[in-house]
Amino acid sequence: MRNDQHPADRRVSRRHLLLGGAAAGLGAAASVGVAAAVTQTGGQSPAAAVDLNGSRTVPFFGVHQAGIETVPQAQVTYLALDLHDSVDAAAVKRMMRILTGDAAQLTQGESALADSEPELALVPARLTVTFGFGPGLVARTAQPAPGWLRPLPAFTVDRLEDAWSGGDLLIQIAADDQLTVAHATRMLLKDTRSFASLRWTQTGFRRAPGSEKPGTTMRNLFGQVDGTVNLMPGSADFEKLVWGSSSPAWLAGGTSLVLRRITMDLDKWDKLDRGGRESAVGRTLAVGAPLTGTKESDEPDFAATTAIGFPVIPEYSHIRRARSEDPGERIFRRGYNYDEPPAGGSVSNSGLLFVSFQADVDAQFVPIQKRLDALDLLNEWITPIGSAVFAIPPGCTSSGYIGDTLI
Amino acid sequence: MRNDQHPADRRVSRRHLLLGGAAAGLGAAASVGVAAAVTQTGGQSPAAAVDLNGSRTVPFFGVHQAGIETVPQAQVTYLALDLHDSVDAAAVKRMMRILTGDAAQLTQGESALADSEPELALVPARLTVTFGFGPGLVARTAQPAPGWLRPLPAFTVDRLEDAWSGGDLLIQIAADDQLTVAHATRMLLKDTRSFASLRWTQTGFRRAPGSEKPGTTMRNLFGQVDGTVNLMPGSADFEKLVWGSSSPAWLAGGTSLVLRRITMDLDKWDKLDRGGRESAVGRTLAVGAPLTGTKESDEPDFAATTAIGFPVIPEYSHIRRARSEDPGERIFRRGYNYDEPPAGGSVSNSGLLFVSFQADVDAQFVPIQKRLDALDLLNEWITPIGSAVFAIPPGCTSSGYIGDTLI
Ligand code: HEM
Ligand code: HEM
Repeated sequence: MRNDQHPADRRVSRRHLLLGGAAAGLGAAASVGVAAAVTQTGGQSPAAAVDLNGSRTVPFFGVHQAGIETVPQAQVTYLALDLHDSVDAAAVKRMMRILTGDAAQLTQGESALADSEPELALVPARLTVTFGFGPGLVARTAQPAPGWLRPLPAFTVDRLEDAWSGGDLLIQIAADDQLTVAHATRMLLKDTRSFASLRWTQTGFRRAPGSEKPGTTMRNLFGQVDGTVNLMPGSADFEKLVWGSSSPAWLAGGTSLVLRRITMDLDKWDKLDRGGRESAVGRTLAVGAPLTGTKESDEPDFAATTAIGFPVIPEYSHIRRARSEDPGERIFRRGYNYDEPPAGGSVSNSGLLFVSFQADVDAQFVPIQKRLDALDLLNEWITPIGSAVFAIPPGCTSSGYIGDTLI
Repeated sequence: MRNDQHPADRRVSRRHLLLGGAAAGLGAAASVGVAAAVTQTGGQSPAAAVDLNGSRTVPFFGVHQAGIETVPQAQVTYLALDLHDSVDAAAVKRMMRILTGDAAQLTQGESALADSEPELALVPARLTVTFGFGPGLVARTAQPAPGWLRPLPAFTVDRLEDAWSGGDLLIQIAADDQLTVAHATRMLLKDTRSFASLRWTQTGFRRAPGSEKPGTTMRNLFGQVDGTVNLMPGSADFEKLVWGSSSPAWLAGGTSLVLRRITMDLDKWDKLDRGGRESAVGRTLAVGAPLTGTKESDEPDFAATTAIGFPVIPEYSHIRRARSEDPGERIFRRGYNYDEPPAGGSVSNSGLLFVSFQADVDAQFVPIQKRLDALDLLNEWITPIGSAVFAIPPGCTSSGYIGDTLI
C-alpha cells in the first residue's frame, strides 16, 4: 500500500517530457521511473542538460484539485481565513475567481495578476494551491453542507486552542521551495484582503527534494517512519474513499480535509527506550517494519504472539488501534512536521500537522480517532492542540473557478 | 566577483568522488563543474546510480570552521544562548567539547552521542554547525576580547528589540534539509542545557537544492538579486578580509559574524513602481544588472550620467552607498530570507537575516553601515530590529574542540 508513484506526478512528467524532449530532467525522470539519457558532457556542467526540480509544475486545472494526489512537496503553509461579516455568496464568488486565477498562474511558474515581485514566481518547484471551505463559507451560499462539515466531536485527548482551529476558507500552499511558498502565500493573502482576515497560519516540512530516494516514506520528529500504510493515489480504493464524495452534488470530485495540530513531547519521548517506542507504534524505528516483520512493506501479523503468549504487536499500539476491520474506514494521510522555536526553557516546540483526506469525515476519520482516543499508547507523548475540518471542492476547468459548483 | 564555486565544496566533492567512484552524484558534480558519467540505465531508475544531495557532507574539522565558505545551504537556524551565571571557563570548555563532538558527528551524517532519534541523523544534506562567542562568553576566560566584540554603535535606522539581539554563544546550523536542521538543533540545544538558556532562535531560507542552476545568486523577498558583489571564498581578498583576524592570538583562523534582523515592509515596497525600486538599489530587478549595464556581472559605472546630467546610478542608491573606495572596507555577506506568520491584519512579517563575516567589525562592517544609515533610499522600506556580534573562533582538529585556542 506504499505510494511511490502518484498519478498527478506522472502527468507532470509527461508534460516535462513534451517540453524538455531528450533533455527531460533527471529529477522528474527519477521519480517516475523513466530512464533519462544524460550523456557525458565533457567540460560542460551536466546541470545544463538537466531540467531543474525548481522548473517542475503540477497542472492546476482538472477534475480534482491538485495538492492531494501530488507527491508531497517539501514545504507547506496552511492558511485559514475568516470571511468578513459583509461577505455574501456573490463576494465569495468574486474572491474565488481572483484566487483561482492567481493560483493557476503561480502554480505554472507565471506571475500573479498584480504580482509585485514577478521574478519570485519563476520557480514553481511543483507548487500546488488547494482550497477548502469551512462551514462558515458554505453557510453563505444557497447550497446544503455535507453533514460532517462541522467541528469534530470532542475527544478526551484534545487540548484545542482557538489559535489553531476552525476557519471559513483554507488555502494549502505547498512546493519544494520555501521561497516559492512564501511568495505564493503573500500573493494569495493579498487577494483575500477585502474579503477575509487571517485566522491562523501553520507551516510544515518534509525531507527536501534530493535528500532521499524518491518514494522514501517520510520520518516524523519522533524518528518514526510515518505514512507507510496509506491509500494509493490512482487506486480504486482512493477513488472511492477519497474522491467518492457525491453528496451534496456540488462536492462531486471533491473530498474533505481534516487538519489536526498535534504536539509531540520530544523530551518525554526521549526518556522511553527503543523497545518501548517500537511497541507504542507496533513498528521498528530502523526501517518501519511491523514488529512481526523485517521490511517496511511487510503486512503486520496482528495474531502473532510472543513465547509467553502476549501479542507481538501490542493491543495498545498505534497501528493496531488505527486499523479497522472495515475497509471503508480508511483515510489518506498527507501530513507534515512542524518545528517552532521553543519557548521558556523547553528544548522543543514540535509536532505533526496531521492532515487527512477522506470522502466522509464521520464515516472514515471519526471512528479511527475515536479508537485512538480510547486507547493508543502514543497518547502519552502526543496532544492535539488544533483541529479543523474543510470541504475540498472539486477542481475546475480553465474557464471556471474553484467553488463554481457551489456558487 | 560572483562566487559559483566555493573551495569548501570542492573539498566535499573530492571526498564524494573518492567514496562514490564513477557513481559520484550529479548534484555534487553539477555544482563543481565536474562531468558525471551517468549512463542510460534502461528500466532501472537512474536515481540508484546517483548519490543524493541528502548524502553530501561538508568536513567539520579544519583550519577554519565550516558554514562560512560553504555554498549557502537552503535552510538555516541561528540560536543565541545566555550562559548561566555559574558557568566559568572550565564549564565553557566542557560544554564546547560536548558541542564539538556532536557537531562533528552530525555533520558527517552520524548520530550524536546521546542521539534520541539516530535515524534522523542519516541525511546530512551538507549540514554545517558554526559556533560564535559573544562578549559574555569571552569575559569568562582569561583571554582578551577583540576590540570590536561589543554591541554595534547605535544607528538612527535601528529599532532594536532585545528578543533578537545579543547573546553569549551563537550556533549557526545550516543544511539543505529542514528536518536535518531541526534534528541537529534539538541535539545541540540538549547539549547546552546545563550550561545555558536559549535567548533567541532565528530561522531563514534560500532557494531549495535543485531549484535553480548552481551558482545562481539568491533573491530576497523584495524580489531583488541579492549577493552579487561579494568576497569570493578561496580568493586572496577573502583570506585577508575574512580570515585575517590575527589579534587576539586565539582568533587566528577565525573571523567575526554580524547578524542583523532587518524587516522588509513588503506592503510599502509594493506601492513603489519598478523604476523606483531599481533606482533605490541601483540594479535591475530582472537580472540584477547595474543600471549602467545589462548583465549581473557587469561592473557598475558610477560616473555615467543621464541625458539631463543626473547619475544613472543615483547618489542615494544602496549599491553606491554600500561600496567604499577603500578596498579594505569589504565584507562577506551570507544572509537568508525570513518569513514568519503575519500578525494582526498585516499581510507579511518578512525580511532578511543579514549575516556578514569580516576580520574586523569596526574597520569593515561599521563604516558601511554608517554610510547606509546616513543615506540609503532602501531605508524607506527596511528596519533593523535585531543586532548581534560574535567572534568566530578558528576550526579545530579531531582531537581538539571549537574554542580550544581560547580556553
Ligand atoms: C503526532 C501524532 C501521530 C503520530 C506521531 C503518528 C505516527 C504513526 C506511525 C509511526 C504509523 C506507522 C507507519 C504508517 O503506517 O504510517 C502510523 C500509522 C497510522 N496512523 Fe498515525 N500518528 C499520529 C496521529 C494519527 C492520527 C490523529 C490518526 C487518525 C485519527 C492516525 C492514523 C493512522 C493510521 C490510519 C495509520 C495506519 C495504520 C495501519 O497500519 O493500518 N495517526 N501513525
Ligand atoms: C534588508 C536589508 C537589505 C537589502 C534588501 C539589501 C539588498 C541589496 C541588494 C539588492 C544589493 C545589490 C546586489 C548585490 O551586490 O548583492 C546589495 C548590495 C550590497 N549590500 Fe545590501 N541589502 C540590505 C542590507 C545591507 C546591509 C545592512 C549592509 C551592510 C551594512 C549591506 C551591504 C551591501 C553591500 C556591501 C553590497 C555590495 C555593494 C557593491 O556593489 O559594492 N546591505 N544589497
